Amino acid sequence: MSTEHETHSVFFVSDGTGITAETLGNTLLTQFPNDSFIRATIPFVNTVEYARTVVRHIDSLSKSQPTPLVFSTVVSDEIREVFTASGALVIDLLGEATKRLEQTLHTEASHSPGRAHGQGDLERYNARMHAVEFAIEHDDGQSLRALDRSDIILIAPSRCGKTPTTMYLALQHGVLVANYPLIHEDFGSIELPAPIAPLADKCFGLLSTPQRLSEVRTQRRPDSRYASLDQCRYELRNAEEMYRRHGIPFVNSASKSIEEMASVILHSMSLRK
Amino acid sequence: MSTEHETHSVFFVSDGTGITAETLGNTLLTQFPNDSFIRATIPFVNTVEYARTVVRHIDSLSKSQPTPLVFSTVVSDEIREVFTASGALVIDLLGEATKRLEQTLHTEASHSPGRAHGQGDLERYNARMHAVEFAIEHDDGQSLRALDRSDIILIAPSRCGKTPTTMYLALQHGVLVANYPLIHEDFGSIELPAPIAPLADKCFGLLSTPQRLSEVRTQRRPDSRYASLDQCRYELRNAEEMYRRHGIPFVNSASKSIEEMASVILHSMSLRK
Repeated sequence: MSTEHETHSVFFVSDGTGITAETLGNTLLTQFPNDSFIRATIPFVNTVEYARTVVRHIDSLSKSQPTPLVFSTVVSDEIREVFTASGALVIDLLGEATKRLEQTLHTEASHSPGRAHGQGDLERYNARMHAVEFAIEHDDGQSLRALDRSDIILIAPSRCGKTPTTMYLALQHGVLVANYPLIHEDFGSIELPAPIAPLADKCFGLLSTPQRLSEVRTQRRPDSRYASLDQCRYELRNAEEMYRRHGIPFVNSASKSIEEMASVILHSMSLRK
Repeated sequence: MSTEHETHSVFFVSDGTGITAETLGNTLLTQFPNDSFIRATIPFVNTVEYARTVVRHIDSLSKSQPTPLVFSTVVSDEIREVFTASGALVIDLLGEATKRLEQTLHTEASHSPGRAHGQGDLERYNARMHAVEFAIEHDDGQSLRALDRSDIILIAPSRCGKTPTTMYLALQHGVLVANYPLIHEDFGSIELPAPIAPLADKCFGLLSTPQRLSEVRTQRRPDSRYASLDQCRYELRNAEEMYRRHGIPFVNSASKSIEEMASVILHSMSLRK
Protein backbone atom coordinates (compact mmCIF):
# COMPACT_ATOMS: atom_id res chain seq x y z
CA MET A 1 0.00 0.00 0.00
CA SER A 2 0.98 3.63 -0.38
CA THR A 3 3.34 5.22 2.08
CA GLU A 4 2.13 8.77 1.49
CA HIS A 5 0.32 10.15 4.48
CA GLU A 6 -2.13 12.94 4.17
CA THR A 7 -4.02 14.97 6.71
CA HIS A 8 -7.65 13.97 6.92
CA SER A 9 -10.42 15.94 8.57
CA VAL A 10 -12.27 13.73 11.04
CA PHE A 11 -15.76 14.37 12.36
CA PHE A 12 -17.31 12.59 15.34
CA VAL A 13 -21.02 13.01 14.78
CA SER A 14 -23.70 12.12 17.30
CA ASP A 15 -27.28 12.80 18.30
CA GLY A 16 -26.05 12.77 21.91
CA THR A 17 -22.83 13.99 23.50
CA GLY A 18 -20.52 12.45 20.91
CA ILE A 19 -18.54 10.61 23.59
CA THR A 20 -19.15 7.16 22.16
CA ALA A 21 -18.31 8.31 18.64
CA GLU A 22 -15.10 9.94 19.89
CA THR A 23 -14.08 6.93 21.95
CA LEU A 24 -14.51 4.36 19.23
CA GLY A 25 -13.38 6.67 16.44
CA ASN A 26 -10.17 7.52 18.27
CA THR A 27 -9.59 3.85 19.04
CA LEU A 28 -9.78 3.13 15.32
CA LEU A 29 -7.48 6.03 14.44
CA THR A 30 -4.74 4.84 16.84
CA GLN A 31 -4.36 1.95 14.39
CA PHE A 32 -3.04 4.48 11.86
CA PRO A 33 -0.23 6.16 13.79
CA ASN A 34 1.50 7.55 10.70
CA ASP A 35 -1.48 9.43 9.38
CA SER A 36 -2.49 12.78 10.76
CA PHE A 37 -5.99 13.86 11.55
CA ILE A 38 -7.73 17.11 12.41
CA ARG A 39 -10.59 16.20 14.71
CA ALA A 40 -13.90 17.90 15.40
CA THR A 41 -16.81 16.64 17.47
CA ILE A 42 -20.32 17.62 16.46
CA PRO A 43 -22.74 16.65 19.23
CA PHE A 44 -26.55 16.91 19.37
CA VAL A 45 -27.25 16.40 15.66
CA ASN A 46 -30.94 15.81 16.23
CA THR A 47 -32.63 17.20 13.13
CA VAL A 48 -32.37 16.49 9.41
CA GLU A 49 -31.89 20.22 8.85
CA TYR A 50 -28.90 20.47 11.16
CA ALA A 51 -27.47 17.29 9.62
CA ARG A 52 -27.72 18.89 6.16
CA THR A 53 -25.83 21.96 7.39
CA VAL A 54 -23.10 19.74 8.80
CA VAL A 55 -22.87 17.69 5.60
CA ARG A 56 -22.63 20.87 3.48
CA HIS A 57 -19.63 21.90 5.59
CA ILE A 58 -18.00 18.47 5.29
CA ASP A 59 -18.59 18.32 1.55
CA SER A 60 -17.10 21.78 1.04
CA LEU A 61 -13.90 20.47 2.63
CA SER A 62 -13.79 17.33 0.53
CA LYS A 63 -13.36 19.42 -2.64
CA SER A 64 -9.92 20.68 -1.64
CA GLN A 65 -8.81 17.97 0.82
CA PRO A 66 -8.44 14.19 1.00
CA THR A 67 -11.64 12.32 1.83
CA PRO A 68 -12.95 13.44 5.24
CA LEU A 69 -13.79 10.71 7.75
CA VAL A 70 -17.08 10.70 9.64
CA PHE A 71 -17.60 8.46 12.68
CA SER A 72 -21.28 8.45 13.47
CA THR A 73 -23.40 7.12 16.31
CA VAL A 74 -26.57 8.77 15.02
CA VAL A 75 -29.51 6.46 15.63
CA SER A 76 -32.27 7.99 13.49
CA ASP A 77 -32.49 6.39 10.01
CA GLU A 78 -33.53 9.71 8.47
CA ILE A 79 -30.49 11.57 9.77
CA ARG A 80 -28.12 8.70 8.97
CA GLU A 81 -29.23 8.85 5.34
CA VAL A 82 -28.19 12.52 5.15
CA PHE A 83 -24.66 11.53 6.16
CA THR A 84 -24.51 8.46 3.93
CA ALA A 85 -25.19 10.72 0.95
CA SER A 86 -22.13 12.88 1.70
CA GLY A 87 -18.77 12.65 -0.02
CA ALA A 88 -17.02 11.55 3.18
CA LEU A 89 -16.15 8.05 4.32
CA VAL A 90 -18.99 7.53 6.79
CA ILE A 91 -18.43 4.87 9.42
CA ASP A 92 -21.71 4.08 11.06
CA LEU A 93 -20.64 2.67 14.40
CA LEU A 94 -24.01 1.34 15.51
CA GLY A 95 -26.00 0.26 12.44
CA GLU A 96 -24.73 -3.23 11.65
CA ALA A 97 -24.30 -4.25 15.29
CA THR A 98 -27.83 -3.05 16.13
CA LYS A 99 -29.28 -5.28 13.42
CA ARG A 100 -27.44 -8.33 14.70
CA LEU A 101 -28.54 -7.62 18.27
CA GLU A 102 -32.17 -7.29 17.14
CA GLN A 103 -31.95 -10.75 15.61
CA THR A 104 -30.39 -12.42 18.64
CA LEU A 105 -32.54 -10.64 21.21
CA HIS A 106 -35.72 -11.03 19.14
CA THR A 107 -36.53 -7.42 20.03
CA GLU A 108 -36.64 -4.24 18.01
CA ALA A 109 -34.14 -1.58 19.00
CA SER A 110 -35.73 1.57 20.37
CA HIS A 111 -33.81 3.80 17.92
CA SER A 112 -34.05 6.62 20.42
CA PRO A 113 -31.11 8.98 20.31
CA GLY A 114 -28.46 9.86 22.80
CA ARG A 115 -29.18 7.47 25.64
CA ALA A 116 -25.62 6.39 26.25
CA HIS A 117 -24.37 9.35 28.25
CA GLY A 118 -27.57 10.72 29.68
CA GLN A 119 -28.33 10.30 33.35
CA GLY A 120 -29.58 6.85 32.34
CA ASP A 121 -29.82 4.65 35.38
CA LEU A 122 -30.37 7.39 37.98
CA GLU A 123 -29.28 5.26 40.90
CA ARG A 124 -25.98 4.47 39.22
CA TYR A 125 -25.60 8.11 38.19
CA ASN A 126 -26.14 9.37 41.72
CA ALA A 127 -23.67 6.79 43.03
CA ARG A 128 -21.04 8.24 40.70
CA MET A 129 -21.76 11.80 41.85
CA HIS A 130 -21.61 10.68 45.48
CA ALA A 131 -18.32 8.90 44.83
CA VAL A 132 -16.75 12.10 43.45
CA GLU A 133 -17.65 13.96 46.65
CA PHE A 134 -16.37 11.09 48.74
CA ALA A 135 -13.10 11.11 46.80
CA ILE A 136 -12.56 14.83 47.32
CA GLU A 137 -13.38 14.55 51.00
CA HIS A 138 -10.88 11.72 51.48
CA ASP A 139 -8.16 12.91 49.15
CA ASP A 140 -4.62 12.57 50.46
CA GLY A 141 -5.64 11.31 53.88
CA GLN A 142 -7.44 14.61 54.54
CA SER A 143 -10.18 12.88 56.45
CA LEU A 144 -9.67 9.53 58.11
CA ARG A 145 -13.19 9.39 59.47
CA ALA A 146 -14.67 7.27 56.78
CA LEU A 147 -11.77 5.15 55.54
CA ASP A 148 -13.74 2.09 56.57
CA ARG A 149 -16.71 3.19 54.44
CA SER A 150 -14.58 3.15 51.31
CA ASP A 151 -14.49 0.29 48.81
CA ILE A 152 -10.84 0.84 47.98
CA ILE A 153 -7.99 2.69 49.67
CA LEU A 154 -5.16 3.66 47.34
CA ILE A 155 -1.84 3.91 49.15
CA ALA A 156 1.46 5.20 47.76
CA PRO A 157 4.32 7.62 48.28
CA SER A 158 3.55 11.20 47.28
CA ARG A 159 3.12 11.86 43.50
CA CYS A 160 2.64 8.28 42.30
CA GLY A 161 -0.78 9.14 40.84
CA LYS A 162 -3.18 8.43 43.72
CA THR A 163 -5.39 11.47 43.21
CA PRO A 164 -6.18 11.26 39.48
CA THR A 165 -6.66 7.48 39.73
CA THR A 166 -9.02 8.01 42.67
CA MET A 167 -11.03 10.59 40.71
CA TYR A 168 -11.24 8.36 37.67
CA LEU A 169 -12.51 5.38 39.68
CA ALA A 170 -15.08 7.57 41.41
CA LEU A 171 -16.30 9.40 38.34
CA GLN A 172 -16.45 6.52 35.89
CA HIS A 173 -17.23 3.59 38.14
CA GLY A 174 -18.96 5.08 41.18
CA VAL A 175 -16.55 3.29 43.49
CA LEU A 176 -15.89 4.85 46.90
CA VAL A 177 -12.14 5.44 46.92
CA ALA A 178 -10.06 7.01 49.65
CA ASN A 179 -6.36 7.51 49.33
CA TYR A 180 -3.64 7.55 51.91
CA PRO A 181 -0.12 8.92 51.41
CA LEU A 182 2.86 6.86 52.62
CA ILE A 183 5.52 9.18 54.02
CA HIS A 184 9.14 8.74 55.08
CA GLU A 185 8.15 8.11 58.70
CA ASP A 186 5.85 5.22 57.73
CA PHE A 187 8.84 3.19 56.60
CA GLY A 188 10.48 2.99 60.04
CA SER A 189 8.22 0.11 61.06
CA ILE A 190 7.29 -3.17 59.42
CA GLU A 191 3.65 -2.49 60.24
CA LEU A 192 1.13 -0.66 58.07
CA PRO A 193 0.41 2.91 59.25
CA ALA A 194 -2.13 2.76 62.10
CA PRO A 195 -5.16 4.24 60.28
CA ILE A 196 -5.02 1.69 57.46
CA ALA A 197 -3.66 -1.32 59.37
CA PRO A 198 -7.12 -2.81 60.09
CA LEU A 199 -8.17 -2.17 56.47
CA ALA A 200 -5.39 -3.97 54.59
CA ASP A 201 -7.87 -5.96 52.49
CA LYS A 202 -9.17 -2.73 50.96
CA CYS A 203 -5.73 -1.37 50.18
CA PHE A 204 -4.21 -1.21 46.72
CA GLY A 205 -0.69 0.13 46.26
CA LEU A 206 0.80 2.34 43.57
CA LEU A 207 4.45 2.53 42.64
CA SER A 208 6.48 4.49 40.11
CA THR A 209 10.07 4.39 38.91
CA PRO A 210 12.62 6.49 40.83
CA GLN A 211 13.39 8.50 37.66
CA ARG A 212 9.78 9.28 36.85
CA LEU A 213 8.91 10.08 40.48
CA SER A 214 11.90 12.36 40.85
CA GLU A 215 10.90 14.20 37.67
CA VAL A 216 7.34 14.72 38.84
CA ARG A 217 8.46 15.84 42.31
CA THR A 218 11.02 18.20 40.82
CA GLN A 219 8.23 20.05 39.03
CA ARG A 220 6.66 20.68 42.41
CA ARG A 221 9.77 21.30 44.55
CA PRO A 222 12.94 21.68 42.50
CA ASP A 223 16.25 20.76 44.15
CA SER A 224 14.59 19.43 47.30
CA ARG A 225 15.53 16.30 49.19
CA TYR A 226 11.91 15.28 48.57
CA ALA A 227 12.56 15.26 44.81
CA SER A 228 16.02 13.66 44.94
CA LEU A 229 16.56 10.36 43.18
CA ASP A 230 17.88 8.85 46.44
CA GLN A 231 14.79 9.77 48.41
CA CYS A 232 12.47 8.51 45.66
CA ARG A 233 14.41 5.25 45.46
CA TYR A 234 14.19 4.84 49.27
CA GLU A 235 10.44 5.43 49.43
CA LEU A 236 9.61 3.22 46.44
CA ARG A 237 11.75 0.33 47.67
CA ASN A 238 10.17 0.48 51.11
CA ALA A 239 6.65 0.90 49.78
CA GLU A 240 7.06 -2.16 47.56
CA GLU A 241 8.37 -4.14 50.53
CA MET A 242 5.40 -3.02 52.59
CA TYR A 243 2.93 -4.08 49.87
CA ARG A 244 4.57 -7.50 49.54
CA ARG A 245 4.78 -8.10 53.28
CA HIS A 246 1.08 -7.38 53.78
CA GLY A 247 -0.19 -9.02 50.58
CA ILE A 248 -1.37 -5.71 49.15
CA PRO A 249 -1.73 -5.82 45.36
CA PHE A 250 0.04 -3.02 43.52
CA VAL A 251 0.66 -1.55 40.09
CA ASN A 252 3.39 0.66 38.67
CA SER A 253 2.01 3.97 37.45
CA ALA A 254 5.08 5.02 35.48
CA SER A 255 4.08 3.24 32.30
CA LYS A 256 0.32 2.98 32.79
CA SER A 257 -2.47 5.48 32.18
CA ILE A 258 -5.08 6.09 34.89
CA GLU A 259 -7.57 4.19 32.72
CA GLU A 260 -5.25 1.17 32.65
CA MET A 261 -4.57 1.39 36.39
CA ALA A 262 -8.30 1.66 37.13
CA SER A 263 -8.86 -1.39 34.99
CA VAL A 264 -6.15 -3.38 36.80
CA ILE A 265 -7.40 -2.24 40.22
CA LEU A 266 -11.04 -3.09 39.60
CA HIS A 267 -10.17 -6.39 37.99
CA SER A 268 -7.94 -7.25 40.95
CA MET A 269 -10.47 -6.14 43.56
CA SER A 270 -13.38 -7.67 41.59
CA LEU A 271 -15.20 -4.44 42.11
CA ARG A 272 -15.96 -3.57 38.53
CA LYS A 273 -19.58 -2.52 38.48
CA MET B 1 -40.98 -9.67 17.05
CA SER B 2 -41.23 -11.50 20.34
CA THR B 3 -42.06 -9.64 23.51
CA GLU B 4 -40.42 -12.13 25.86
CA HIS B 5 -37.33 -10.70 27.48
CA GLU B 6 -34.61 -12.87 28.82
CA THR B 7 -31.50 -12.12 30.80
CA HIS B 8 -28.39 -12.30 28.66
CA SER B 9 -24.83 -12.49 29.90
CA VAL B 10 -22.76 -9.76 28.31
CA PHE B 11 -18.98 -9.74 28.03
CA PHE B 12 -16.89 -6.74 27.07
CA VAL B 13 -13.67 -8.27 25.83
CA SER B 14 -10.52 -6.33 25.03
CA ASP B 15 -6.78 -6.62 24.64
CA GLY B 16 -6.55 -3.27 26.46
CA THR B 17 -8.57 -1.79 29.31
CA GLY B 18 -11.96 -2.71 27.88
CA ILE B 19 -13.16 0.89 28.09
CA THR B 20 -13.93 1.22 24.39
CA ALA B 21 -15.74 -2.13 24.34
CA GLU B 22 -17.77 -1.11 27.39
CA THR B 23 -18.61 2.32 26.01
CA LEU B 24 -19.82 1.15 22.63
CA GLY B 25 -21.37 -2.06 23.96
CA ASN B 26 -23.37 -0.19 26.57
CA THR B 27 -24.44 2.37 23.97
CA LEU B 28 -25.82 -0.48 21.87
CA LEU B 29 -27.54 -2.08 24.85
CA THR B 30 -29.39 1.14 25.79
CA GLN B 31 -31.31 0.57 22.56
CA PHE B 32 -32.86 -2.49 24.22
CA PRO B 33 -34.30 -1.02 27.42
CA ASN B 34 -36.69 -3.90 28.09
CA ASP B 35 -34.07 -6.61 28.08
CA SER B 36 -31.87 -7.28 31.04
CA PHE B 37 -28.18 -7.94 30.95
CA ILE B 38 -25.56 -9.18 33.38
CA ARG B 39 -22.34 -7.45 32.39
CA ALA B 40 -18.71 -8.45 32.86
CA THR B 41 -15.61 -6.79 31.50
CA ILE B 42 -12.61 -8.90 30.62
CA PRO B 43 -9.62 -6.65 29.95
CA PHE B 44 -6.09 -7.51 28.81
CA VAL B 45 -6.96 -10.59 26.70
CA ASN B 46 -3.57 -10.67 25.03
CA THR B 47 -2.89 -14.33 24.39
CA VAL B 48 -4.66 -17.08 22.48
CA GLU B 49 -4.46 -19.24 25.59
CA TYR B 50 -6.23 -16.74 27.81
CA ALA B 51 -8.81 -16.17 25.06
CA ARG B 52 -9.53 -19.92 25.00
CA THR B 53 -10.07 -19.92 28.79
CA VAL B 54 -12.50 -17.03 28.47
CA VAL B 55 -14.37 -18.71 25.60
CA ARG B 56 -14.65 -21.97 27.57
CA HIS B 57 -16.32 -20.00 30.37
CA ILE B 58 -18.68 -18.22 27.96
CA ASP B 59 -19.59 -21.47 26.20
CA SER B 60 -20.32 -23.20 29.50
CA LEU B 61 -22.91 -20.49 30.18
CA SER B 62 -24.50 -20.76 26.77
CA LYS B 63 -25.60 -24.33 27.48
CA SER B 64 -28.04 -23.28 30.22
CA GLN B 65 -28.72 -19.65 29.29
CA PRO B 66 -29.86 -17.60 26.31
CA THR B 67 -27.09 -16.70 23.85
CA PRO B 68 -24.38 -14.67 25.60
CA LEU B 69 -23.31 -11.44 23.93
CA VAL B 70 -19.66 -10.58 23.39
CA PHE B 71 -18.56 -7.06 22.45
CA SER B 72 -14.96 -7.24 21.38
CA THR B 73 -12.31 -4.68 20.53
CA VAL B 74 -9.56 -7.28 20.24
CA VAL B 75 -7.21 -6.33 17.41
CA SER B 76 -5.20 -9.52 16.85
CA ASP B 77 -6.65 -11.72 14.13
CA GLU B 78 -5.55 -14.88 15.94
CA ILE B 79 -7.37 -13.97 19.14
CA ARG B 80 -10.43 -12.73 17.28
CA GLU B 81 -10.76 -16.14 15.64
CA VAL B 82 -10.94 -17.82 19.05
CA PHE B 83 -13.96 -15.69 19.93
CA THR B 84 -15.63 -16.06 16.54
CA ALA B 85 -15.61 -19.83 17.07
CA SER B 86 -17.59 -19.52 20.32
CA GLY B 87 -21.30 -20.10 20.72
CA ALA B 88 -21.92 -16.45 21.69
CA LEU B 89 -23.08 -13.60 19.49
CA VAL B 90 -19.72 -11.91 18.92
CA ILE B 91 -19.87 -8.28 17.88
CA ASP B 92 -16.46 -7.28 16.60
CA LEU B 93 -16.51 -3.52 17.09
CA LEU B 94 -13.38 -2.71 15.11
CA GLY B 95 -12.98 -5.22 12.29
CA GLU B 96 -15.20 -3.94 9.50
CA ALA B 97 -14.46 -0.27 10.19
CA THR B 98 -10.71 -0.94 10.20
CA LYS B 99 -10.93 -2.50 6.74
CA ARG B 100 -12.82 0.48 5.33
CA LEU B 101 -10.31 2.90 6.88
CA GLU B 102 -7.41 0.95 5.38
CA GLN B 103 -8.96 1.38 1.93
CA THR B 104 -9.63 5.09 2.27
CA LEU B 105 -6.33 5.92 3.95
CA HIS B 106 -4.32 3.64 1.64
CA THR B 107 -2.44 2.44 4.73
CA GLU B 108 -2.36 -0.80 6.62
CA ALA B 109 -3.64 -0.67 10.18
CA SER B 110 -0.98 -1.39 12.77
CA HIS B 111 -3.13 -4.08 14.45
CA SER B 112 -1.31 -3.39 17.70
CA PRO B 113 -3.47 -3.92 20.75
CA GLY B 114 -4.74 -1.64 23.44
CA ARG B 115 -3.56 1.75 22.26
CA ALA B 116 -6.77 3.61 22.93
CA HIS B 117 -6.48 4.14 26.67
CA GLY B 118 -2.76 3.98 27.26
CA GLN B 119 -0.84 7.10 28.10
CA GLY B 120 -0.82 7.72 24.36
CA ASP B 121 0.03 11.31 23.62
CA LEU B 122 2.08 12.01 26.78
CA GLU B 123 1.69 15.75 26.56
CA ARG B 124 -2.08 15.48 26.42
CA TYR B 125 -2.01 12.87 29.20
CA ASN B 126 0.05 15.10 31.48
CA ALA B 127 -2.28 18.02 30.74
CA ARG B 128 -5.19 15.91 31.99
CA MET B 129 -3.33 14.96 35.18
CA HIS B 130 -2.40 18.59 35.76
CA ALA B 131 -6.02 19.65 35.17
CA VAL B 132 -7.23 17.24 37.90
CA GLU B 133 -4.86 18.81 40.42
CA PHE B 134 -5.87 22.27 39.31
CA ALA B 135 -9.54 21.34 39.74
CA ILE B 136 -9.01 20.05 43.26
CA GLU B 137 -7.02 23.11 44.22
CA HIS B 138 -9.73 25.46 42.95
CA ASP B 139 -12.78 23.49 44.01
CA ASP B 140 -15.58 25.52 45.53
CA GLY B 141 -13.71 28.81 45.49
CA GLN B 142 -11.08 27.33 47.85
CA SER B 143 -8.30 29.20 46.16
CA LEU B 144 -8.90 32.39 44.23
CA ARG B 145 -5.24 32.85 43.37
CA ALA B 146 -5.34 31.32 39.95
CA LEU B 147 -8.88 31.94 38.73
CA ASP B 148 -7.41 33.89 35.85
CA ARG B 149 -5.23 30.93 34.85
CA SER B 150 -8.31 28.77 34.33
CA ASP B 151 -9.93 28.11 30.95
CA ILE B 152 -13.43 27.93 32.40
CA ILE B 153 -14.97 29.05 35.68
CA LEU B 154 -18.17 27.22 36.57
CA ILE B 155 -20.47 29.33 38.74
CA ALA B 156 -23.68 28.22 40.46
CA PRO B 157 -25.55 28.08 43.75
CA SER B 158 -24.43 25.29 46.06
CA ARG B 159 -25.28 21.70 44.96
CA CYS B 160 -26.04 22.36 41.28
CA GLY B 161 -23.29 19.97 40.15
CA LYS B 162 -20.23 22.23 39.84
CA THR B 163 -17.75 19.81 41.40
CA PRO B 164 -18.42 16.61 39.42
CA THR B 165 -18.72 18.59 36.18
CA THR B 166 -15.41 20.28 36.95
CA MET B 167 -13.73 16.93 37.61
CA TYR B 168 -15.12 15.44 34.43
CA LEU B 169 -13.91 18.34 32.26
CA ALA B 170 -10.46 18.14 33.85
CA LEU B 171 -10.08 14.38 33.72
CA GLN B 172 -11.47 13.73 30.26
CA HIS B 173 -10.58 16.91 28.42
CA GLY B 174 -7.59 18.33 30.28
CA VAL B 175 -9.32 21.69 30.58
CA LEU B 176 -8.35 23.94 33.51
CA VAL B 177 -11.60 24.48 35.36
CA ALA B 178 -12.15 26.43 38.54
CA ASN B 179 -15.52 26.71 40.18
CA TYR B 180 -17.05 29.45 42.24
CA PRO B 181 -20.11 29.11 44.47
CA LEU B 182 -22.83 31.79 44.34
CA ILE B 183 -24.22 32.39 47.81
CA HIS B 184 -27.22 34.29 49.19
CA GLU B 185 -25.16 37.43 49.77
CA ASP B 186 -24.05 37.55 46.12
CA PHE B 187 -27.61 38.27 45.04
CA GLY B 188 -27.89 41.60 46.85
CA SER B 189 -26.10 43.40 44.03
CA ILE B 190 -26.56 43.49 40.27
CA GLU B 191 -22.81 43.04 39.85
CA LEU B 192 -20.93 39.75 39.59
CA PRO B 193 -19.06 38.78 42.79
CA ALA B 194 -15.79 40.73 42.90
CA PRO B 195 -13.35 37.79 42.31
CA ILE B 196 -15.06 36.73 39.06
CA ALA B 197 -16.27 40.14 37.81
CA PRO B 198 -13.19 40.73 35.60
CA LEU B 199 -13.41 37.14 34.28
CA ALA B 200 -17.01 37.06 33.04
CA ASP B 201 -15.98 35.77 29.61
CA LYS B 202 -14.63 32.58 31.21
CA CYS B 203 -17.73 31.98 33.31
CA PHE B 204 -20.32 29.33 32.60
CA GLY B 205 -23.39 29.03 34.83
CA LEU B 206 -25.21 25.98 36.12
CA LEU B 207 -28.82 25.91 37.25
CA SER B 208 -31.14 23.26 38.59
CA THR B 209 -34.86 23.06 39.35
CA PRO B 210 -36.01 24.20 42.82
CA GLN B 211 -37.43 20.69 43.51
CA ARG B 212 -34.28 18.85 42.52
CA LEU B 213 -32.00 21.32 44.32
CA SER B 214 -34.08 21.13 47.49
CA GLU B 215 -33.93 17.32 47.37
CA VAL B 216 -30.15 17.28 47.00
CA ARG B 217 -29.67 19.88 49.73
CA THR B 218 -32.02 18.01 52.07
CA GLN B 219 -29.73 14.98 51.88
CA ARG B 220 -26.94 17.16 53.20
CA ARG B 221 -28.85 19.32 55.72
CA PRO B 222 -32.39 18.10 56.35
CA ASP B 223 -35.01 20.67 57.45
CA SER B 224 -32.64 23.60 57.01
CA ARG B 225 -33.47 26.97 55.48
CA TYR B 226 -30.65 26.15 53.05
CA ALA B 227 -32.61 23.14 51.75
CA SER B 228 -36.04 24.80 51.73
CA LEU B 229 -37.90 25.09 48.45
CA ASP B 230 -38.24 28.85 48.98
CA GLN B 231 -34.52 29.38 49.42
CA CYS B 232 -33.69 27.21 46.40
CA ARG B 233 -36.23 29.09 44.29
CA TYR B 234 -34.74 32.43 45.42
CA GLU B 235 -31.16 31.45 44.60
CA LEU B 236 -31.97 29.87 41.24
CA ARG B 237 -34.10 32.81 40.09
CA ASN B 238 -31.39 35.27 41.04
CA ALA B 239 -28.60 33.18 39.56
CA GLU B 240 -30.43 32.94 36.24
CA GLU B 241 -31.00 36.71 36.26
CA MET B 242 -27.30 37.23 36.95
CA TYR B 243 -26.28 34.94 34.07
CA ARG B 244 -28.63 36.72 31.65
CA ARG B 245 -27.61 40.21 32.74
CA HIS B 246 -23.92 39.47 32.21
CA GLY B 247 -24.29 37.34 29.08
CA ILE B 248 -23.00 34.23 30.83
CA PRO B 249 -24.08 31.02 29.07
CA PHE B 250 -25.73 28.45 31.31
CA VAL B 251 -27.21 24.97 31.40
CA ASN B 252 -29.71 23.28 33.68
CA SER B 253 -28.17 20.30 35.47
CA ALA B 254 -31.45 18.79 36.68
CA SER B 255 -32.08 16.80 33.52
CA LYS B 256 -28.55 16.53 32.15
CA SER B 257 -25.70 14.18 32.99
CA ILE B 258 -22.22 15.57 33.64
CA GLU B 259 -21.18 14.14 30.26
CA GLU B 260 -23.96 16.08 28.54
CA MET B 261 -23.16 19.26 30.47
CA ALA B 262 -19.45 18.94 29.65
CA SER B 263 -20.38 18.54 26.00
CA VAL B 264 -22.63 21.63 26.06
CA ILE B 265 -20.02 23.67 27.95
CA LEU B 266 -17.12 22.77 25.65
CA HIS B 267 -19.23 23.27 22.55
CA SER B 268 -20.36 26.65 23.83
CA MET B 269 -16.89 27.76 24.90
CA SER B 270 -15.29 26.24 21.76
CA LEU B 271 -12.74 24.65 24.01
CA ARG B 272 -13.18 21.05 22.99
CA LYS B 273 -9.67 19.72 22.56
